[in-house]
Amino acid sequence: MARYDFASDNVAGAMPEVMDALVRFNDGPAAGYGADAVCAWAADLIRALLDADADVRFAASGTAANAIVLAALAAPHEAVIAHEYSHVATDETGAPGFFGAGLGIIGLPGASGRIAPASLTEALARPDEPHWQSGAALSVTNATEFGAVYDEADLSRLIGAAKDHGLKVHLDGARLANAVAAGFDPRAVARLGVDVLVLGGTKAGSTPTEAIVLLDKSLSRRFGARLKHGGQLISKARFLAAPWIGMLETGAWSTRAAHANAMARRLAAAAPFPLTHPVEANAVFVDMDEPAYRRLLKAGWSVYRFIDGSVRFMCSWATTQAAVDELAETLRSIY
Amino acid sequence: MARYDFASDNVAGAMPEVMDALVRFNDGPAAGYGADAVCAWAADLIRALLDADADVRFAASGTAANAIVLAALAAPHEAVIAHEYSHVATDETGAPGFFGAGLGIIGLPGASGRIAPASLTEALARPDEPHWQSGAALSVTNATEFGAVYDEADLSRLIGAAKDHGLKVHLDGARLANAVAAGFDPRAVARLGVDVLVLGGTKAGSTPTEAIVLLDKSLSRRFGARLKHGGQLISKARFLAAPWIGMLETGAWSTRAAHANAMARRLAAAAPFPLTHPVEANAVFVDMDEPAYRRLLKAGWSVYRFIDGSVRFMCSWATTQAAVDELAETLRSIY
Amino acid sequence: MARYDFASDNVAGAMPEVMDALVRFNDGPAAGYGADAVCAWAADLIRALLDADADVRFAASGTAANAIVLAALAAPHEAVIAHEYSHVATDETGAPGFFGAGLGIIGLPGASGRIAPASLTEALARPDEPHWQSGAALSVTNATEFGAVYDEADLSRLIGAAKDHGLKVHLDGARLANAVAAGFDPRAVARLGVDVLVLGGTKAGSTPTEAIVLLDKSLSRRFGARLKHGGQLISKARFLAAPWIGMLETGAWSTRAAHANAMARRLAAAAPFPLTHPVEANAVFVDMDEPAYRRLLKAGWSVYRFIDGSVRFMCSWATTQAAVDELAETLRSIY
Amino acid sequence: MARYDFASDNVAGAMPEVMDALVRFNDGPAAGYGADAVCAWAADLIRALLDADADVRFAASGTAANAIVLAALAAPHEAVIAHEYSHVATDETGAPGFFGAGLGIIGLPGASGRIAPASLTEALARPDEPHWQSGAALSVTNATEFGAVYDEADLSRLIGAAKDHGLKVHLDGARLANAVAAGFDPRAVARLGVDVLVLGGTKAGSTPTEAIVLLDKSLSRRFGARLKHGGQLISKARFLAAPWIGMLETGAWSTRAAHANAMARRLAAAAPFPLTHPVEANAVFVDMDEPAYRRLLKAGWSVYRFIDGSVRFMCSWATTQAAVDELAETLRSIY
Repeated sequence: MARYDFASDNVAGAMPEVMDALVRFNDGPAAGYGADAVCAWAADLIRALLDADADVRFAASGTAANAIVLAALAAPHEAVIAHEYSHVATDETGAPGFFGAGLGIIGLPGASGRIAPASLTEALARPDEPHWQSGAALSVTNATEFGAVYDEADLSRLIGAAKDHGLKVHLDGARLANAVAAGFDPRAVARLGVDVLVLGGTKAGSTPTEAIVLLDKSLSRRFGARLKHGGQLISKARFLAAPWIGMLETGAWSTRAAHANAMARRLAAAAPFPLTHPVEANAVFVDMDEPAYRRLLKAGWSVYRFIDGSVRFMCSWATTQAAVDELAETLRSIY
Repeated sequence: MARYDFASDNVAGAMPEVMDALVRFNDGPAAGYGADAVCAWAADLIRALLDADADVRFAASGTAANAIVLAALAAPHEAVIAHEYSHVATDETGAPGFFGAGLGIIGLPGASGRIAPASLTEALARPDEPHWQSGAALSVTNATEFGAVYDEADLSRLIGAAKDHGLKVHLDGARLANAVAAGFDPRAVARLGVDVLVLGGTKAGSTPTEAIVLLDKSLSRRFGARLKHGGQLISKARFLAAPWIGMLETGAWSTRAAHANAMARRLAAAAPFPLTHPVEANAVFVDMDEPAYRRLLKAGWSVYRFIDGSVRFMCSWATTQAAVDELAETLRSIY
Repeated sequence: MARYDFASDNVAGAMPEVMDALVRFNDGPAAGYGADAVCAWAADLIRALLDADADVRFAASGTAANAIVLAALAAPHEAVIAHEYSHVATDETGAPGFFGAGLGIIGLPGASGRIAPASLTEALARPDEPHWQSGAALSVTNATEFGAVYDEADLSRLIGAAKDHGLKVHLDGARLANAVAAGFDPRAVARLGVDVLVLGGTKAGSTPTEAIVLLDKSLSRRFGARLKHGGQLISKARFLAAPWIGMLETGAWSTRAAHANAMARRLAAAAPFPLTHPVEANAVFVDMDEPAYRRLLKAGWSVYRFIDGSVRFMCSWATTQAAVDELAETLRSIY
Repeated sequence: MARYDFASDNVAGAMPEVMDALVRFNDGPAAGYGADAVCAWAADLIRALLDADADVRFAASGTAANAIVLAALAAPHEAVIAHEYSHVATDETGAPGFFGAGLGIIGLPGASGRIAPASLTEALARPDEPHWQSGAALSVTNATEFGAVYDEADLSRLIGAAKDHGLKVHLDGARLANAVAAGFDPRAVARLGVDVLVLGGTKAGSTPTEAIVLLDKSLSRRFGARLKHGGQLISKARFLAAPWIGMLETGAWSTRAAHANAMARRLAAAAPFPLTHPVEANAVFVDMDEPAYRRLLKAGWSVYRFIDGSVRFMCSWATTQAAVDELAETLRSIY
């Protein structure tokens, strides 16, 4: 029987703080579609986390949240500039193009999922022509798909260049909790001039919920209609908001991410295979040949090769030290 | 302070059976995106309910579930035939047109949300022309938006006519639990030749979840990709599936709908205002002039005028007899 | 054999001035995609006609031109307010919804295709809600689908109300030539604050070409990419521009429309059937029962019943007095 | 003043046979939207050229024709497999993604625009997963973007592999005339099992027109509505059809392509710069460093660097031997 422990950070259940909050806010009627007190409170906590004024909405899927937001930042005949291996570019089955009515993605290179500044400069310098989709927004991801963490200075350089060319900025924060646990200041999001943040709840340890944080509040107009039109205006929205109260009131959102990061470091330290990316958040990527990989799967661990050919192990709030040690032992045995 | 008790059947929280199931299936890692045992079990229970072979997927929003399904049944240059006051026609902010890339809706009349058979005959007789969108699918809703319930013979006539013209059939079952509690046999869905059912969980008393039931299994191919592309492939899908186990294993899905229906009948019996639609499910619609309506709002009840000008009261699994009696008293006082 | 003379104003060929211009500008190579001297000259003539600064692009289809423009004026989760029988609402097979990714149309009533001001006031007063698509643009048509002509004061009232609510304004000028020939000042377009005009070439007597006139020049940014993305950036654009030079340099665009209007008046005067709309441009609508209509078709005239049940006869630059008289004779014989 | 002679094969005007046909079929009224005798005749001639039964429609833009057709062959959550440098992948500003509601393109490598069979095998072997868009159609281009010509055996291998996996096949024949002039048998299109051919008129020497050839006639149902919905149902369709009569009745479609091919060979023979692709159709690609390129532009020739870094020269029906010789002289002088 397959063990999914390290397949992704979304194979875990929800942390106790989230389950408690779901139960706690279940009683009694509440206005639908986000107009209730639970949503208001969760939004307040997110604003406090970011130390920023912003409108906050909730969605049930990160793919949908990213796609709806990108469609708000770039017209169909325009493009979003993103890392070539970013989630929006490679792992959303065309959702940005669907929500954006054919919106394009311009994929840029860069080590471990961080966009190489020179490649951005070059992309921004390309003149507008009717024969291609020019960039209208920059999308960055922190922590990256490869478990690296941008520091504020790195992001500032990229975002500054984008803003100088009139682009809007989207931050995919599916794993922002892990970046924050690694030292990234959540208040930097507003300082950096990010226009929209998709703040990850699911991978942080919640039941399905992502927060769409509209730091550029001019985007808020008719955003509810935009969500409904895109199938993301949940009627019983309190169930998307309550987890945030559970995670943020207690601090569990980042403390549990710190645990996940620690588990990744522990695994990296014990794994005999060479690391292919720095272990700065909750992911461990290793170089593993096909026979070893097959032995690993045969031993019952369900993991997979990532886009870049590395084998990926994800830790989460629920990853136990015992599981890490058990996996490490398997890794040593198949090496 | 506003009382939302009767504003909609989605202002209620989740029934205990659902909360218990969420907690019960939270432990341990599980494969993502619907490939887990919880989803498999929930699908089995839904197949058992319907006594039908079908592929079952889960979505977080009924609007999204309907829209994705309609887009699978009709091409962008085609149309869906539906009641002019159906949810897909009037209450989804254009979502079917968005998911369906401009797909049209042909709205037909009919008392209390049931499509008038003659109007369907007429719509089906319209020849194909490049200058309009011809019908490719029929969408019916049971219970209807106005709390009426189609019986099997009614639906058979409509669906038979549609099938004779080669149309596919969608059943919006956001309130199928209430229809079933009112006597509609869930096994009729397959007998009638429905191609896709969107089975309502949220309004039945769950946290956000709807089941997409593909009775025409030829639609299943690449349906996961279709869901992801449309932002509805939830990674931690067990949290959309578990509520179904809670509701169906115990029978609460229909027994609690029976309670909601009974509350509606109780309210209807006590309300002094004339009913505008038959009370066959969990809704009560009354004729109320503007001064009375304003007195009602002033008394603290948050309800609203529906599309047809009636004032609507919705009951749910959570509606208490005390609340019904209290509302009835207000209604008598403002009459 | 069917006679198509009065079926539409697009059953005619192209006027001599257009054919001459096509031949005249055919020689030698020219830059593609609208960057050539023929396009520049045609744009100048259109600006002169309107006495306005504007960016001008050409498209091969009025449906496409309208749809692309509406998608530039309203977001997918918003709506365009238009007459319920306007071309964009009823005769484009969902193209606005397709180009606008599910954009909605709010149809308003009004006699003979002119929007009733009170209905616009009411539509504009509807509050924004996430549950429906609110208006973002007003679309008006001159001459209307029913051959009526708005005067400047009428349009000023409608457009003023729309602008007061922050809406953008689209003028469908598929038959603006006929309106101009009927006394509408083309310079009024800019005075009225129209943001985008789709200026009709085809029905005016050209080979396929429509001009997209961006009076709000902020819409021009990346408009070429928008056109290409939407399949309307024609490489050999000179063939869409040359007809405009032929029509405008000579004045034939309006003088031949005056002829079409005169033919309509002649037909109206001779037709024994009651008129259902005022004959202000190039269309004649009559009340005709089914037996008479069948006799008409049997006599070989290919025309059709319009949306409102009237039988429609369209005149064009190519309509001859002899054909009018012949048709009138048939009409008298079948009366 | 810039000389556009070799910038593209769409900088030329229309050949005399086309202009004659436009004038010839201009007289009298004709049914709109493709239901006229001119369209019927042109379709007959195209069927005769291909020796195949097929439904034939006309569009004003190759980008639109390709995009509409691809959207008919692949669902939004699926992908089209094409050469990475094909027109649909690189030069249509996202139109396939727009018409296909987010449809993806899977780009494959291969020398001179011909897909490498091994890369296709690999792409077809990729399992279906909800996390990416799987191929539903293969798109091939003949002649390719780099002026190479597939022979029938090459195409047979690619198409056979695609069909074995249940994919549909699109042939972008924007320059099929040049391929035919180079020896490709037009009757091979049907033999090969191509489902839809977009047959190029514009680059062959026409005013704007492309023919959509539905060899799989099951695609014909409601195709007129599909065209109108996509903004490509031209009312005065005779003007898109007449050029085909002019080109095919006389044989000019291929004899003039043979001239274009000969001009390319003449230029290639005289050009001192190394060729980067075989000269099999009407294009010449050379390796030219930046200083030489700048001298070329300064000499007044408007050409451009292609995607692969080569400098491209296109010949057309209108390219004169004198222009070739003049350009060759310039090339020698700047070498």
